[in-house]
Amino acid sequence: MNKNKILRIIPIGGLGEVGKNMTLYEYGNNILIVDAGLMFPENDMLGIDYIIPDFEHYLKDKRDQVRGMIFTHGHEDHIGAVQHLLEMVNAPIYATKLTLGLLEVKLSRYGMLAKADLRPVNAGEQISIGPFTVDFFHVCHSIPDGVGLGIETPAGLVVHTGDYKFDHTPVDNWPTDYAKLAEFAQRGVLALLADSTNATEPGWTPSERTIEGALDQVFETAKGRILVATFASLISRMQQVADAAERHGRKIAFTGRSMVENMNMARSLGYVDFPERLVITLEQSLTMPDNQVVLMCTGAQGEPRSIMGRLANGTNRKFDIREGDTIVLSSQPIPGNEEPVYRTINQLFRRGADVIYEAIAPIHVSGHASQEEIKLLLHLVRPKYLIPIHGELRMLKQHAKLAKEVGMPKENICVVENGQIIELVNGELQLAERIPGDYIFVDGSGVGDVDRSIVRERESLAQDGIVVINLVIDDQTGQLNGDPQIITRGFILMDEMQPILDGVKTRIQETLRSSDGNLQGQVLRAVKSYLYEETKRSPYIVVNINRF
Amino acid sequence: MNKNKILRIIPIGGLGEVGKNMTLYEYGNNILIVDAGLMFPENDMLGIDYIIPDFEHYLKDKRDQVRGMIFTHGHEDHIGAVQHLLEMVNAPIYATKLTLGLLEVKLSRYGMLAKADLRPVNAGEQISIGPFTVDFFHVCHSIPDGVGLGIETPAGLVVHTGDYKFDHTPVDNWPTDYAKLAEFAQRGVLALLADSTNATEPGWTPSERTIEGALDQVFETAKGRILVATFASLISRMQQVADAAERHGRKIAFTGRSMVENMNMARSLGYVDFPERLVITLEQSLTMPDNQVVLMCTGAQGEPRSIMGRLANGTNRKFDIREGDTIVLSSQPIPGNEEPVYRTINQLFRRGADVIYEAIAPIHVSGHASQEEIKLLLHLVRPKYLIPIHGELRMLKQHAKLAKEVGMPKENICVVENGQIIELVNGELQLAERIPGDYIFVDGSGVGDVDRSIVRERESLAQDGIVVINLVIDDQTGQLNGDPQIITRGFILMDEMQPILDGVKTRIQETLRSSDGNLQGQVLRAVKSYLYEETKRSPYIVVNINRF
Repeated sequence: MNKNKILRIIPIGGLGEVGKNMTLYEYGNNILIVDAGLMFPENDMLGIDYIIPDFEHYLKDKRDQVRGMIFTHGHEDHIGAVQHLLEMVNAPIYATKLTLGLLEVKLSRYGMLAKADLRPVNAGEQISIGPFTVDFFHVCHSIPDGVGLGIETPAGLVVHTGDYKFDHTPVDNWPTDYAKLAEFAQRGVLALLADSTNATEPGWTPSERTIEGALDQVFETAKGRILVATFASLISRMQQVADAAERHGRKIAFTGRSMVENMNMARSLGYVDFPERLVITLEQSLTMPDNQVVLMCTGAQGEPRSIMGRLANGTNRKFDIREGDTIVLSSQPIPGNEEPVYRTINQLFRRGADVIYEAIAPIHVSGHASQEEIKLLLHLVRPKYLIPIHGELRMLKQHAKLAKEVGMPKENICVVENGQIIELVNGELQLAERIPGDYIFVDGSGVGDVDRSIVRERESLAQDGIVVINLVIDDQTGQLNGDPQIITRGFILMDEMQPILDGVKTRIQETLRSSDGNLQGQVLRAVKSYLYEETKRSPYIVVNINRF
Repeated sequence: MNKNKILRIIPIGGLGEVGKNMTLYEYGNNILIVDAGLMFPENDMLGIDYIIPDFEHYLKDKRDQVRGMIFTHGHEDHIGAVQHLLEMVNAPIYATKLTLGLLEVKLSRYGMLAKADLRPVNAGEQISIGPFTVDFFHVCHSIPDGVGLGIETPAGLVVHTGDYKFDHTPVDNWPTDYAKLAEFAQRGVLALLADSTNATEPGWTPSERTIEGALDQVFETAKGRILVATFASLISRMQQVADAAERHGRKIAFTGRSMVENMNMARSLGYVDFPERLVITLEQSLTMPDNQVVLMCTGAQGEPRSIMGRLANGTNRKFDIREGDTIVLSSQPIPGNEEPVYRTINQLFRRGADVIYEAIAPIHVSGHASQEEIKLLLHLVRPKYLIPIHGELRMLKQHAKLAKEVGMPKENICVVENGQIIELVNGELQLAERIPGDYIFVDGSGVGDVDRSIVRERESLAQDGIVVINLVIDDQTGQLNGDPQIITRGFILMDEMQPILDGVKTRIQETLRSSDGNLQGQVLRAVKSYLYEETKRSPYIVVNINRF
């Protein structure tokens, strides 16, 4: 085996989950990093701020071998761990203009901009990074300026899509680069790593452009103000809403820091284009007739601290929902996030607004390829091997089924999860060792100082609350000195507590009388079983015993 | 105003939410209760077992006026609070055979069967309950033997649908009673209270029967065992799976207590019909060739303690998933429950099974009427007033929009939420007083001893955990006696803790030196601000100070 002709692919994140995408390509002593994203915690990961991929395990001894980092687009699940990665790795960062802009915003927030060696690339360019010759090709997605990668190595050509869809009529008129994909096929693609997020969606993801009709209908029927909420990164939606405002004789105001920042950046870089007279300030909008105004803000996911979240709660500072407002939530609830989204919608209705959301009208489309697009990609690229990426296992498996349907041999489809290293050698794919591919929790300023065991403790605290008992015992008499102090939190209502507290005290006295040694353990067990008998609940119990 | 001709409708639960359905009809001194269901807690209602409607507020002084309780069908969101209601109210219970059977199971579990006066009714019957003359009419739903009600009162006729769909080819061949609905229209319907659950779904809910094709496809391609998971109450699905087993030469085994109990009850009451030779025991199934077996169990919602949940976790006692098993999750994730469902699916894939679920194949249909059915109902019943029930506010609002589309005047559509009492008097609808329509949390054996404030405490405990500090101070010297005892839970990992604990101790010493009085408060604040500086986290802190 020729040790020099092995390309190793190390999936650090995004295989077996949606989020925290990160892949390493390793050839000899050279590592190329593609993306370093974050993942938002699931509902039962209590208190966790976000999750980053476990790159430390593999990179800690190889940090000097990293030749470059490529970010395929500017979404958090692809760039959100960059500040953590830069604490460890020092290498040039390659990305397109908008993606670099979003990286800059993020890195300056963490005071790390000076440390970053940012190198702009354009879709269509070819760049050499160590032994990797990388073709950047344009892809459509729900943020502009996304790219996929053709990574040529001495072991063969690998195509890495990043997130993509095949939109024939994108809002920026820039379709995915079909020609480049076909050109890769001409060269011969050894392996394709492709987005699986929508592998369970039949058909073809609708074009961004299809939203225009639904927007027009909203603008035609709305009598009062129109408020459109979406992601701050959904630059094309800003263009579409501004265009609709222009068509229907309304002015548009952007509100919310991240929305305004992104709009300004996209505007200065030329990713959106609307006339000066169209855009007004929030303050101006508040003094204009309702039917001449569109407001655009964040909070389509029901985030409580976003503008839309605060409007729903009635806690927004600068303005409130008015009877007759029409609100458009231009997004799809992130799976697991349905409850806060629908709660927000219900609250907005309660405040007298009409709310248009995805279930009601086609005011959002996905940025990921559906089944027919995935099949088209396979036919365009004609890879020898397919490695589904970006998705939960069920999505990767479905991606594999699609590949079988278009005729790929089963043994050429490689479904693996985070940490399973893949080697391409002499034109063949083989599995190598498996490394940890776990969650690294970020909580407050701590990275990795909370793990699943701590989250389980939080869960059990949350289940029935806590009871803290403080006893002072006279060492001479063995008697309680004063009443036990009992503090509870998250247990039961104060009003209902007195008989239970009395019962606890009685049990403590009884235990004290019969105790033969380990008083702390005995009090704990007595109180625990008493509380369970009385309430069928098991709060966390702390017993402090002080003797003197 | 003729005080004797007022019908009061008191929506206790299910208006402004999905679940805990309960409506009171009050005429003079006579109350008729329709349904008393439970609701499952949302993800952020930590530690709550379930939620029941707040019927106590309205009924506590009127418990003797209740003439009867009707349960429209046997789902938990319609019967799940019956044991709590019977603690307060003593009146005959009217329901169809299967619904009574499920009520019996529940009431005997709580030792309350003897107290219940159960009276079977048949769809098509008319029964007088005080001043209410009630026509029970058959409706299709995702459980057999559902009924809607025509409630004739001296103030007019009210139609109450319960949950329904218009299935032209139901598995039990018993369609919704269109003729009765039309007959009500002939009589003249003053108000219609109708299910809004699927008011945001366009089109027509597919027939139960459509599942057969998808099941056949699974049975044709599966090489190994087939395991079908669904709700224990989805009796018709048992029939369909058994029929598919028969068609494809497999035997069927039912497993899991609730599934087996319900199957036996449905079989003895004649709601399912399959030949003796078709049904085998779980034990028999485990010794047969894989391709001759179907297992049916619970756990389609990823419930960790269900059979399917345990199979996914590898903790089932009697059998395990085998490589080559085909698993069918015949259900739709309950909104908010997507994460556990998809986690289960991913784990089953990881164990070598192929998993067929709703996103992949049409192996489940809803039991609720979609938009075109809702419109059909309105045309059939031709009510003067519509009161949308069973749904979040956004669904009730959408139901109202549909009614406007079919020509109902806006002012005849009454969208209200729990607690808003409605009066029908002289053929007119008017709003009366509003009573509390809040959540009553059931937690362990406690009903209502936990409220939102306690849940918020649990949330904050879960956010960053707790730190309990126990100090012993020598009253003479004012010095610490020994080291502070510090216990943490759910805060950070032990390995990372030592420097922080040392810092806490230093802060405590400093505070002690400078303290001028309220030592407990000062220690608390000092530790709190230190922990926040160091970790950007705010655990709940308890400080016990013992002096002697």
